Amino acid sequence: MTKSTEPAKPTRSGSAEKTLLVIGLGMIGGSVLRAASKAGNADRILGYDSDPSCIQQAYASGLIRNLPTSLAELCAEASCIVIAAPPLAFDSVFAALADIECPENLVITDVASVKQLTLDACLRHAPELAKRYFPAHPIAGSEKSGLAHAKVDLFRDKKLILTPHPQLSDVARDRVQTFWAGLGCQLATLDPKIHDELLASTSHLPHVLAYVLVDSLVRHEHIDRLFEFAAGGFQDISRTASSDPTMWHDIFTANKEPVLRAVEAFQGRLDLFKELLEQDRGDELYEMLMSAKERRDDYLEKYRS
Amino acid sequence: MTKSTEPAKPTRSGSAEKTLLVIGLGMIGGSVLRAASKAGNADRILGYDSDPSCIQQAYASGLIRNLPTSLAELCAEASCIVIAAPPLAFDSVFAALADIECPENLVITDVASVKQLTLDACLRHAPELAKRYFPAHPIAGSEKSGLAHAKVDLFRDKKLILTPHPQLSDVARDRVQTFWAGLGCQLATLDPKIHDELLASTSHLPHVLAYVLVDSLVRHEHIDRLFEFAAGGFQDISRTASSDPTMWHDIFTANKEPVLRAVEAFQGRLDLFKELLEQDRGDELYEMLMSAKERRDDYLEKYRS
Repeated sequence: MTKSTEPAKPTRSGSAEKTLLVIGLGMIGGSVLRAASKAGNADRILGYDSDPSCIQQAYASGLIRNLPTSLAELCAEASCIVIAAPPLAFDSVFAALADIECPENLVITDVASVKQLTLDACLRHAPELAKRYFPAHPIAGSEKSGLAHAKVDLFRDKKLILTPHPQLSDVARDRVQTFWAGLGCQLATLDPKIHDELLASTSHLPHVLAYVLVDSLVRHEHIDRLFEFAAGGFQDISRTASSDPTMWHDIFTANKEPVLRAVEAFQGRLDLFKELLEQDRGDELYEMLMSAKERRDDYLEKYRS
Repeated sequence: MTKSTEPAKPTRSGSAEKTLLVIGLGMIGGSVLRAASKAGNADRILGYDSDPSCIQQAYASGLIRNLPTSLAELCAEASCIVIAAPPLAFDSVFAALADIECPENLVITDVASVKQLTLDACLRHAPELAKRYFPAHPIAGSEKSGLAHAKVDLFRDKKLILTPHPQLSDVARDRVQTFWAGLGCQLATLDPKIHDELLASTSHLPHVLAYVLVDSLVRHEHIDRLFEFAAGGFQDISRTASSDPTMWHDIFTANKEPVLRAVEAFQGRLDLFKELLEQDRGDELYEMLMSAKERRDDYLEKYRS
């Protein structure tokens, strides 16, 4: 079902990509540009965005050195493309790539938080590129969006999930792994569907809860004083509600069924919590809180120490 | 309905309490001991806990200098009592205080996260002490419980909500305000019922969500790999699920009706989220996320900058 974590392979100058092209110049795409530039794992770095003002901004801040006239012009030179667009843009990106003559040595990867949909987009619009495409999801991000928040060390020592598929060539597998390892990522592999199920629970559901928490408070009778006395707990739990709504709209939509299942599992337990509290079943309520605390403390000890 | 924030009054040595007694030696009670000791706003500092091992621990770590034989013995000397026990212990604390002959100059305050229940406990068990009791709730805490996590600066520059009531004497009002201001708190006042409504939404509901989120994941099909790929968002949103289950069992129970109302408001909006996602109503889904993001960004700008 799943494979164990593979050790990161160090990049050597001999294995650097000739020309890196990042499509999508938001916070994550910008961080790929910065990190790849610092790591030296591409001889030349290009960037593209469907929004010309993002390209201008990347150029003005020195993240890219050339102002492109078209995506085709850039793709013609790319040896490695990183797609850092919102999930629902993958259809149009792969449709565009299918119409472009790409170099023989091209490999493709991405950073999307959903993995079945991005593979499906490739298979649907550009099946001939599937062998070159090794989908990836770096477990690194921020609630701050936009190129201005790009960070050179965003991927350093972070997990990166790769989702192999039957069409993937060995060459693309090796080069994409080398590329991400060169940015400091700890590589792991998962089946795309398993990836989407896991992340629906540990990432997408928490984002749903943060957005809906803030949304539910907006209608509060005492909204004028509500946030005045909000403590650190509220700040932490609502942090991800400050994330880019376009990206999260796309992630929820792209991973609809697993997200709905995770929401329903949560709703079932929230109903139980309410029942225990309503019916003064204090011992069971305490057990529920204690077991959650123990599980969360375990998680911290195991993965965050 | 509510009163505006009052400026903190500096403590002078002339207004220090003669003898401070902290009842309940957990993280918050221990932090009161440490902070009061550093601020010098009590000439003498005593501590008590219904669990003798907590008293031993406070004595061994130098937080208290005397090993008490009874609560009565300590109360006989106290000029200011801070009750730092879990909410559902307030009945027994006030019942005990009612049986003890307290000094004429005694004032009482507390740190509980619910305010109507603590006042009710006083009025029920020790009505003669109500004039001396100014209930308080410092908006400061941690998911780490126990005396070992007590912090000397826990209250520094934090809001503290005081909930005045008709029985409160002017002397108790002034001295309790002076005491908390001396620990660096920013004082505000609220009606106890309004306090409980506001905090049910901004503090108690977020804790419910954190506990229930972790609880809902425990039953996940892929629990063995679930937390391996959990990102910073999960760590933040679940942080408060590591809080003391006894304290939170008590807070939820003590503030049952407002917590149930906040949970129901949340459930209504979560149902809507699910409906929008299920029915592919993307524009409305985006609007919901965007308005939550805007509200959360507003909150950060207004109260956390």
